[in-house]
Amino acid sequence: MHLEQISSPEQLKKVSAEELPQLAEEIRQFLLESLSVTGGHLGSNLGVVELTLALHYLFDSPKDKLLWDVGHQAYVHKILTGRQDDFPTLRKYKGLCGFPKRNESEHDCWETGHSSTSLSGAMGMAAARDIKGEKFRVIPIIGDGALTGGMALEALNHIGNEQADMMVILNDNEMSISPNVGALHNYLGKLRTNRSYHKIKDEVEALLKKIPSVGGTFAHVAERIKDSLKYLIVSGVLFEHLGFTYLGPVNGHNLNGLMESLKQADRTPGPVLVHVITEKGKGYLPAETKEDKLHSVTKGYKLEESKLAETKSEKKAGTEPPKYTKVFGDTLIRIAKEDPRLAAITPAMLGGSGMNEFANQFPDRCFDVGIAEQHATTFAAGLATQGMKPVLAIYSTFLQRAYDQLIHDVARQNLDVLIAVDRAGFVGADGETHQGVYDIAFMRCIPNMVIMMPKDENEFQQMIYTGHQYEGPIAVRFPRGNGIGVEMDKDLKELPIGKGEVLREGRDVALFAFGTMVPAAVEAAEQLAREGIQARVINARFAKPLDTELLDQLIADRMPMVTIEEGSAMGGIGSATLEYVSSQDAQLEVKVLGIPDYYVEHGSPEEQKKEVGLTAENIAVAARGLTPRRRQRA
Amino acid sequence: MHLEQISSPEQLKKVSAEELPQLAEEIRQFLLESLSVTGGHLGSNLGVVELTLALHYLFDSPKDKLLWDVGHQAYVHKILTGRQDDFPTLRKYKGLCGFPKRNESEHDCWETGHSSTSLSGAMGMAAARDIKGEKFRVIPIIGDGALTGGMALEALNHIGNEQADMMVILNDNEMSISPNVGALHNYLGKLRTNRSYHKIKDEVEALLKKIPSVGGTFAHVAERIKDSLKYLIVSGVLFEHLGFTYLGPVNGHNLNGLMESLKQADRTPGPVLVHVITEKGKGYLPAETKEDKLHSVTKGYKLEESKLAETKSEKKAGTEPPKYTKVFGDTLIRIAKEDPRLAAITPAMLGGSGMNEFANQFPDRCFDVGIAEQHATTFAAGLATQGMKPVLAIYSTFLQRAYDQLIHDVARQNLDVLIAVDRAGFVGADGETHQGVYDIAFMRCIPNMVIMMPKDENEFQQMIYTGHQYEGPIAVRFPRGNGIGVEMDKDLKELPIGKGEVLREGRDVALFAFGTMVPAAVEAAEQLAREGIQARVINARFAKPLDTELLDQLIADRMPMVTIEEGSAMGGIGSATLEYVSSQDAQLEVKVLGIPDYYVEHGSPEEQKKEVGLTAENIAVAARGLTPRRRQRA
Repeated sequence: MHLEQISSPEQLKKVSAEELPQLAEEIRQFLLESLSVTGGHLGSNLGVVELTLALHYLFDSPKDKLLWDVGHQAYVHKILTGRQDDFPTLRKYKGLCGFPKRNESEHDCWETGHSSTSLSGAMGMAAARDIKGEKFRVIPIIGDGALTGGMALEALNHIGNEQADMMVILNDNEMSISPNVGALHNYLGKLRTNRSYHKIKDEVEALLKKIPSVGGTFAHVAERIKDSLKYLIVSGVLFEHLGFTYLGPVNGHNLNGLMESLKQADRTPGPVLVHVITEKGKGYLPAETKEDKLHSVTKGYKLEESKLAETKSEKKAGTEPPKYTKVFGDTLIRIAKEDPRLAAITPAMLGGSGMNEFANQFPDRCFDVGIAEQHATTFAAGLATQGMKPVLAIYSTFLQRAYDQLIHDVARQNLDVLIAVDRAGFVGADGETHQGVYDIAFMRCIPNMVIMMPKDENEFQQMIYTGHQYEGPIAVRFPRGNGIGVEMDKDLKELPIGKGEVLREGRDVALFAFGTMVPAAVEAAEQLAREGIQARVINARFAKPLDTELLDQLIADRMPMVTIEEGSAMGGIGSATLEYVSSQDAQLEVKVLGIPDYYVEHGSPEEQKKEVGLTAENIAVAARGLTPRRRQRA
Repeated sequence: MHLEQISSPEQLKKVSAEELPQLAEEIRQFLLESLSVTGGHLGSNLGVVELTLALHYLFDSPKDKLLWDVGHQAYVHKILTGRQDDFPTLRKYKGLCGFPKRNESEHDCWETGHSSTSLSGAMGMAAARDIKGEKFRVIPIIGDGALTGGMALEALNHIGNEQADMMVILNDNEMSISPNVGALHNYLGKLRTNRSYHKIKDEVEALLKKIPSVGGTFAHVAERIKDSLKYLIVSGVLFEHLGFTYLGPVNGHNLNGLMESLKQADRTPGPVLVHVITEKGKGYLPAETKEDKLHSVTKGYKLEESKLAETKSEKKAGTEPPKYTKVFGDTLIRIAKEDPRLAAITPAMLGGSGMNEFANQFPDRCFDVGIAEQHATTFAAGLATQGMKPVLAIYSTFLQRAYDQLIHDVARQNLDVLIAVDRAGFVGADGETHQGVYDIAFMRCIPNMVIMMPKDENEFQQMIYTGHQYEGPIAVRFPRGNGIGVEMDKDLKELPIGKGEVLREGRDVALFAFGTMVPAAVEAAEQLAREGIQARVINARFAKPLDTELLDQLIADRMPMVTIEEGSAMGGIGSATLEYVSSQDAQLEVKVLGIPDYYVEHGSPEEQKKEVGLTAENIAVAARGLTPRRRQRA
């Protein structure tokens, strides 16, 4: 039987065990061909081909529950559960989601996107099952990187204590998005007493030999990878003491051995951990021959989990405006050369945050703490108490996981921490789990916080500098992707805190735009000008504190205004404006444009902005709606 | 030398080692006498008398950094660092803070209040020290309960990996606020191979014998306490594998042994963990003789870490209106009897959340997951995927720690989870670290969320019922403390979602009040009526969705309004109202009363409300400010 004939786990079960390896090859081919067109998470999915086959072959989804931690490795699961034909639409607008999605299939019982949630979800399912006296398997599949996330450890603790019947699959692919760091890995790596160790040692070393060196570009990381043999060999001691039965390690690409272990786990009552060793990108590298191409692609998906299609498109780039993360990394280096107080922190996103070169040049002032957003944030606070000026690089969506630390440790102690809020606004193909749309609202209510967003990459470098100079907690949010191609100032200079910038004069209506929405506001003003409506365009720069001088002027002029932001309209800069006008006992027509109150799904950022009306056209429509009244009064 | 002569660590160092035990006794006397008047965290401070003495005797604060995790056990530290005379003002308005406070003393280098932050802060301090080439000791003191918090484990991982030079004191007092649960404790308890174990076993058992039984009131908890001998004996295996040198266990009430261990730790390079066994409440119980008094007080501080003075005042209570937590617990039981889908979850706050009796009656549907807010929340989501109706009982301030889980796992998946947001609004003596003032703002921007707050304890029971019936994520926030003494309905009934309630008719001005502010609004309306101003009083009930029908009526009537809420004015229900009015292209005078943009310190809730103007008087002032304009127009 061939892959195209398999549209459900039931059909998969009709395949003979001997045919499964052939099916695995077909799945790999399918992934390579499909993702070369659409992009997507290739390496992690190539790593779980056999594992996914084995799970669906042996167990009974949707009755049994498979929970894919992080979720970007669920493509094979999607292929085997009737969604093969949808792959041309993967991660596209209205297309197949890149993560498990409950409304997409009954086989997607648990939605993920952020890391380390599967164990807690599984514990909930198992507890519900036991309360209700039902019978089904609960099987979370979690990577070794996700295990360093605090909530995963909290869950292990609870699962062990309750002795919940479940099968945890530890998908140990040696590295998470950045190479895993941290003592937990050292600990796991050290304990090689497991009897199976020597049996699989040769296989493991053979696998390792296939992984090309990442070269000399980043010695620090290279060293860690070289050192990673020990990460591959995980002892069961920790898990056993937490009350789990430990099985493994087992080679995750050997279907027979894998299925034997899974069957054994299935016969074992209580919580069982099956330690599966997989190779990220398995089956892809051998297909490549040309040395430097191999190197580049390898580097792409090994270090940054970036997408094949993206990697390809990057090659022809060169003349594109720089990525925001590149500007970030370059500016950090520039400031760090002058100021020994700067230190930078990332929770496992060294490459994604553009910090590789910074780490290379300032290894002693660069901290990759692993998937540990809470610790990263409070660690920054600790650094700041001793006179350092830490910069925490964190994606907007992951800052949610450090919210208490931001309030309780950073802002309440009024410490000099610069939060570089990456991927703010729409993130495109990653969709609703990764949208960076709440940060303005959730940071604005925190006393002491300053919140900035630049209109372009040049202002961004100035804001990084401004944030570094500022004394107290300050955030600069910036979008995913490239700048807009403006000239970069040679000198770094401080922007005045809480001051916006009038980009265009006008007396009919004001367009008060934040960050990424400034260019659209300018465009709208140009449209309006052609109709004889003169719009004043203001680059807000700060969501907090607001530029009250500029707003007072609008109030005095009774000038209606449109606020525009790439963030939740509830509680954002529009609300801030309304609050200010109200606090002045003033009356002013304010129209708020922002992201409405629902989860915006995957697609391109442009499609997402269009869907919610964050376009120049819509800004113009809003402005037109305000001007007649203005003119009536005049 | 006597305690009153010691106003700094320098003076303490002049005391001979032989005199220290006497000093310890004097400190205990001081604590007992002082806290019997002011209230405060007695037990945890009695437990660390010798430990604090030893740390200040041997080391050099403020050069050396002492970080008190959670922080409520820093009273002895405050006594020894020149703040003895301030104890009569402990936790009072403008008085001594109940937690470490940087602006209170140079010896308070790290502010805490929430659990599990000290290790991350310490790692930051140690890293800063090493970057700058400075020399000082970094000494976090963390309880065994706080170690189950995910961020503490994230930090241990990082500290071990970096091999940072620091001395972690594990203050193992057998129980955190609720008795510790979880496999980590079982794990630690199981490993009794440590050579020192037998040496201190007898001492430990002697200590245990002094702890009176908690009686038969709550068998489940009692059983855990009985089982807690194993918790007392913590092995170093985990820590050693995380890269720490483990020293201990050492009896935390034996000054000589303690100081020897601390000196040994000080000579050891890299991260060292000193495992100190202390007895919460040490030295207090023997002073008590009367059986039931002993029992009651013991129960008070052993199980709930409640305050001595409060415990006393509760005794004379009886006729007071019920506590909100009592109504919560009772209503849970009532619903659970009818509906097997209800399950309740607490992150280590079983007693504090009023759930002891629920746990007693429904042990299989009650989950105390330890200090693990993130896991608790996502665990609730997991339960809900399988048709359960989980109730997560969590303090507003601790919900901050589960923010990503609320967004990513609960609300985005649109699951039936009822969040019972306890201690919402001002919390009184615990002060700024514990204020529950951001939850409206940070929940309002989350799609799918419904947010309620009751005006009194009767409406509270109806909202719990409503939340239980509702399909989707829903939060009911409620204040700390007692109800207002209204009659309780016999039957539970559902309130219509998103509908407010007009409590008093009026045509001059509308008072739109949320939850706890409703009684003040009613009082303000009465004041205004005496001046001939007729205020319409609206009990908002829902911050999201707003009652747009009621608001449309106000817009149609051009009735100016005052919004009043016990929560951050930035992004709260006032903002929501402004946003709605703006979205309708309407003009309406709206005055927003809420908590302003700074950290409100400790005091009584009444003092805190008065400070920020959340009083009937101030509501009336705001209303008066709006009515002239209204009348002018009329």
